[in-house]
Order: sequence, then structure tokens, then C-alpha cells
Amino acid sequence: MRIANVAGRACLITPTGGVDLFDASQGAFPETVDAAIGDVVDIAAWFRSIELDLDPTLSTTALLADLGRLGPPITRPPQVFAIGLNYADHAGETGFDVPSQPMVFTKFASSLAGPGAQVPVLADTIDWEVELVAVVGTGGRDIAAEEAMSHLAGFCIGQDISERRLQMASQPAQFSLAKSLRNYSPIGPWITTLDELEDPTDLAIACHHGDEVLQASRTKHLIFDVATLIEYLSRHVELLPGDLIFTGTPDGVGVGRRPRVFIQPGWEIRSEIEGLGYLHNTFVQM
Amino acid sequence: MRIANVAGRACLITPTGGVDLFDASQGAFPETVDAAIGDVVDIAAWFRSIELDLDPTLSTTALLADLGRLGPPITRPPQVFAIGLNYADHAGETGFDVPSQPMVFTKFASSLAGPGAQVPVLADTIDWEVELVAVVGTGGRDIAAEEAMSHLAGFCIGQDISERRLQMASQPAQFSLAKSLRNYSPIGPWITTLDELEDPTDLAIACHHGDEVLQASRTKHLIFDVATLIEYLSRHVELLPGDLIFTGTPDGVGVGRRPRVFIQPGWEIRSEIEGLGYLHNTFVQM
Repeated sequence: MRIANVAGRACLITPTGGVDLFDASQGAFPETVDAAIGDVVDIAAWFRSIELDLDPTLSTTALLADLGRLGPPITRPPQVFAIGLNYADHAGETGFDVPSQPMVFTKFASSLAGPGAQVPVLADTIDWEVELVAVVGTGGRDIAAEEAMSHLAGFCIGQDISERRLQMASQPAQFSLAKSLRNYSPIGPWITTLDELEDPTDLAIACHHGDEVLQASRTKHLIFDVATLIEYLSRHVELLPGDLIFTGTPDGVGVGRRPRVFIQPGWEIRSEIEGLGYLHNTFVQM
Repeated sequence: MRIANVAGRACLITPTGGVDLFDASQGAFPETVDAAIGDVVDIAAWFRSIELDLDPTLSTTALLADLGRLGPPITRPPQVFAIGLNYADHAGETGFDVPSQPMVFTKFASSLAGPGAQVPVLADTIDWEVELVAVVGTGGRDIAAEEAMSHLAGFCIGQDISERRLQMASQPAQFSLAKSLRNYSPIGPWITTLDELEDPTDLAIACHHGDEVLQASRTKHLIFDVATLIEYLSRHVELLPGDLIFTGTPDGVGVGRRPRVFIQPGWEIRSEIEGLGYLHNTFVQM
């Protein structure tokens, strides 16, 4: 199942069309994805069990062609976890050691944006980071890795856009604020449940600027995979329905290049993960 | 005005008694502090304008004598900002430089607890940090320092309890997770609006373990004062109603002592700020 935020309303979408969740369920399920996220298992069972008239303007194809209709699938996550240096090749390009345990910071919620959001270029050191984002459906503490994937509502794509100078401005550098500027956390295009994916642990992940490949890897190269991250995080904090976990970015970021490359106004970056769709963000002068 | 979370319900409290906000307003105002926080100005005006029968079991004195009745005044803040090294004497004792701009991390929301919460001693490097917490009432971006205080619903006290080994485990050290263990963010005992305080920019702040003074300072020694923090944060992110800003701790923490001192099971720490009441947290073996 795929659940999207279409102009603020939770919609279930398929390749041929979709439905408004609240309307189609005659009010049995909530109006927003934020409110529905804890019920994804029940919603999927109901959606499988019923024959509905699908609105073709809510097909995945129609929505990908008009990403501006989509908001971030979750708008007010209780918590946003972001994992640093979680692909060895990326840790290497930044000059940091490969971490022996997950490095955890946050992206503040007001930075979330839809999959087609315009992003202001607020400095001359703005960088890209495509990431797999895990969305918590059922919360808890002390979740074992073996049980972890069943706690997820699904996956979406995220861009962890980063202002590199601000990111390193404190001593020791605290990453969160520099990754939370306006629209610096586009997510989407929707949440895909894991049963839609042949192998949720090995997905192609990439981002492009025009014809140029900026990043291209596979999620099997995560140092700490999604199940391990859920086990680790839930050993320290309580996970809550709607929490987002930005799982880290592969190599290919601008700050890792020689010479360094940063995003310029006019750039368009397409961020893609196998089976999840794509984001398409335009960077605009401020 | 003082607004408290008493067993999940927003209550307006005074030295002689208090009222349940929803009941006393006949439903004009919400049932929880989280829902009411954006309306604090209107609620205060209404509370001043009306004569109500005050319940003496909801007096500030009665509640301070039984802190277990109180939950954290805000339970699901959209964002929690925490400021590191924001008193020069504390930066000095930790060996870090005095920051030239605010250092910002988060305390994840699931760590919030009431003012009388029991706190598990989850490692042998647990430390205390009493802090002034500013609670956002009216959000926004690009708020000037001169306007900043009018965006606050009020102040409360916070303990930024920290697991020091975990805090330094990543490279560069990311502070957020180590300050977000279960009940490691007690706040309260309630939110006090700024008009209750003679000088909101200069409040005595202290914490004690039994008869021992652990920390004692004044909030005038903040390097970046509350208005400056609001200006700085809102230049980078959007502030939202219910956001919490942990403004930093003065000197006297355990990791800054020689030899180092950490919290042991059985300790009771009382955290106090002039005009705001106190927290009283017992630390328990796990």
C-alpha cells in the first residue's frame, strides 16, 4: 500500500488511481496521514478487502507528474532521528572515522517539506544527501532487531539538505540546526509499506542534478541497517507512531569532492529510491 | 498566570487554589496544556476578568507538596531546542571554548517527564544540568530580539539529565541521544507567564542534592539570553507553539569536578528557579 498527503488529506494510491482515506472509509479512518500512521496495518487490510472506485487523478503516475500536489507524508512527527556517517564510503569522503555505534542527531520538524518543494539557497555551502527514511507505525522501547521491521509503517525518500558551514560552526559540531533550514527536509513522495518491496534491505538509492549522477548506491551498504537502528534507538528512547528515521546518506556529497561542489540557484535535484518513487526539488535564489 | 498539567488536564493555579481550564471556561478553552499553549494570552485575559471558585487542592502549595500529580506541562512539543555551553563558567569547567554562536541540539520528546518523576540511573556517568526552559506560545520566523519575549507562553524549569559517556561517543560528539533517555527531561512544575516575574532576565537558578548545593547561578549570566536565542533560532527554523528551548546550564555539573562526580541511585535532586517553583527528582536503580 502507498499512503500520500494530497493537499493535506490522507490518500491511498495505486498505479491506476487512488481514494481519499476518510471519505472512502466513511470516516472509519482519519483525514490526515499523521493521524492515520498508527493504523497502517488495519488500513492496508481494509483496503485489500474492499472494491473501490479509484480516482485516476490520484494515480501514482498522475501524482509524480505534479509533485506540488503532495505535502510531506508526515507533517508533525513526534521525533525525527537522523543518522550520520552510516555508509562507509560517505564517512570516508568526509574525513570522519566509520562510527562504531550510530551517530544520532535531529532534523527539526519545521524543515519538513513536500516532495516537489522549492528550496531556498541560503548560503554558498548548501549540500545534498539522499536518504532512506523509515516511518514508525507502532512505537515502543527495547524493540529487538528481529521484530523491528514490523514496527514500521513504511519507507519514504528524504533529502537531508545541509548548510555545511553552519554544520561545523560549534565545538563540538552539532549537526541538527544546519540540516533544518526552511524546506531543507523534503520527504515523500508518499509512504510505501514494506510488502510492496521485493527486498526492503537492498534498494537502489540515487540522486541526480540534470544528467549528472550525484550519488548512487544501494541501501544494503548501510553500516547500521534499519532493523539495527530501530533496536539501537529504542534501547535509548521510546519510539512513537509517526517518528521519522533518516538513515544516512551514501557517498557523493558535494563537500566530499575536490574541489568542493555546492548547490547553486537554479539546480534541480531528483532523489530516487527503488520502489519508493522520487523527489524533485528546485533550488531558488533568496 | 500559572498553567499546569494535572493528571493530563490543563489547570490554572494560584497560591490559594486553581481551576480546570476546560471545565471553568465551559469548553471555551482546551483540555490540555499542549492544546492551550497558543492561547495563553487570551486565557490569561479571561482568567483575570472572571471570578471563579478556586479548588484549594489545586493551589501551588498543595501541588508542590505532591509533585507526582503533575505531568510535564508540555507533553508533545513540536520541537525541543537545547543550547549547549551557554554559561561561560560551565563552558570553562567542561574544557570547551565559549561559543561564538549558540550551539543547538535536541532532547527527544519521549524523554520528557513530570517535575516529580523518578529517573533511572542507566549508567555510571549520569550528570545533572538545571536549566531555564522557555516555552513558545506564538511561533514564527525571523523574530527580532526586541519582539522575542512576547512570543513566549512562559518559563518553566528543566533538568537536562545527561549520560556523559554516550554524549561523547560519536565523532564529532552529537549530544542529543545521551540527553533523551527515559525521564531524562523532567520539566515543570508548571508554566509561569513572564508578567509574574519581576525581572525575567535575571532569575536565581540552582539545584541541590540534599543539603549540598550542586549548581547556583543567575540567568543574567546566560551568554546568549532568551531573546537572543529566539532571534537566532527563528532565523534558521520556524518556531512553533509549544516548542521548548532548554537554555543551557550554569557551572557545577559533575563532569566538571575533580574528581568527577556522577549521580548514584538514591540521590534526590531539587532543581529550582526563582519564581518558577521547583522539580524534585529521585534517582532509582535499574
